[in-house]
Amino acid sequence: MEERLRRQLDFALEIDKEKNIFRQTHLSGHGRRENDAEHAWHMAVMAYLLREYANEEIDIARVMLLCLIHDIVEIESGDTYAYDEESVRTQKQREDAAKEKIYSLLPDDQKREFVSLFDEFEENRTAEARFAHAMDNLQPLILNDSNHGGDWKEHGVSAGQVYGRHKKTREGSERLYEAADEIIRENIRKGNLKE
Amino acid sequence: MEERLRRQLDFALEIDKEKNIFRQTHLSGHGRRENDAEHAWHMAVMAYLLREYANEEIDIARVMLLCLIHDIVEIESGDTYAYDEESVRTQKQREDAAKEKIYSLLPDDQKREFVSLFDEFEENRTAEARFAHAMDNLQPLILNDSNHGGDWKEHGVSAGQVYGRHKKTREGSERLYEAADEIIRENIRKGNLKE
Repeated sequence: MEERLRRQLDFALEIDKEKNIFRQTHLSGHGRRENDAEHAWHMAVMAYLLREYANEEIDIARVMLLCLIHDIVEIESGDTYAYDEESVRTQKQREDAAKEKIYSLLPDDQKREFVSLFDEFEENRTAEARFAHAMDNLQPLILNDSNHGGDWKEHGVSAGQVYGRHKKTREGSERLYEAADEIIRENIRKGNLKE
Repeated sequence: MEERLRRQLDFALEIDKEKNIFRQTHLSGHGRRENDAEHAWHMAVMAYLLREYANEEIDIARVMLLCLIHDIVEIESGDTYAYDEESVRTQKQREDAAKEKIYSLLPDDQKREFVSLFDEFEENRTAEARFAHAMDNLQPLILNDSNHGGDWKEHGVSAGQVYGRHKKTREGSERLYEAADEIIRENIRKGNLKE
């Protein structure tokens, strides 16, 4: 097998480990914790399903790609819980080192391409990155809503923190932000989320 | 929230159940069994990574979509192990009923669209479906290879059966079929797969 394909298949095998990186979010039906690969799959399908609500014109293929690859670095750096301030503070440094390590498995042209996609998501400056971020927030919201706010209760998360996170949802989609707001208010009303 | 968005979010929540549909394939590192959502994610990333090897010109966005949604019906119908002949015989009937049920959650236009994507994958008549099928075969092959053929041994699968399945890999990509053939021959040589 030639070197190029061998490196691509080595990378394909390496990213299998993303299925062992667990998040704080639990699956619907009060299930087990979700892993990064499942989360990325769910985001990508939701992006396609909900693309009509993007604030701006988007290339849906690139949105799906951003969703699919945005957490690969966590194989090296671990998951960062959005409401863990200390972990969020060190996130960029940890992920930059992880990014260099994992994408170096790829042939150089593809390393550049995947690093560029990862950076695009992180920098959040394109319409596609903004819509992908909306999915990154909306996806755990609907799971947590279905579980009566169990993840918020477990971590003592407040409505203010949730609204802080959903500022990015609004940058990607006003309409989906309104839906998120409706879901958040309902959870406050039910006592699932503290004000 | 208007009816259309409500139905889309209900569907988004329903497909969360795909994370509980487990396959016969085990994760690398002799891990637990893989679920359908993880498998679909892995296929979609691999499709993008390996798109240069497709036999025909492909719309990579549609390939990724086919990968992402091809197993959603299994929420209703359950997983069908590729080497379980009895299960394969009843697969189409079970999946057709499942398809009608699950996609009826969507607004009509999106039901038609998702059913059409599912049918495209199943009928395997487009370049995109053929490349997606190549991923559907190659992805478990690299996991099983990394685990010294554990899944084949567990189910008494023969090289003939594996080659039978990989006919579809060849229809999507001659080059990736050659790589698969190299991997299969190596596993026969090592005694991981019976001739």
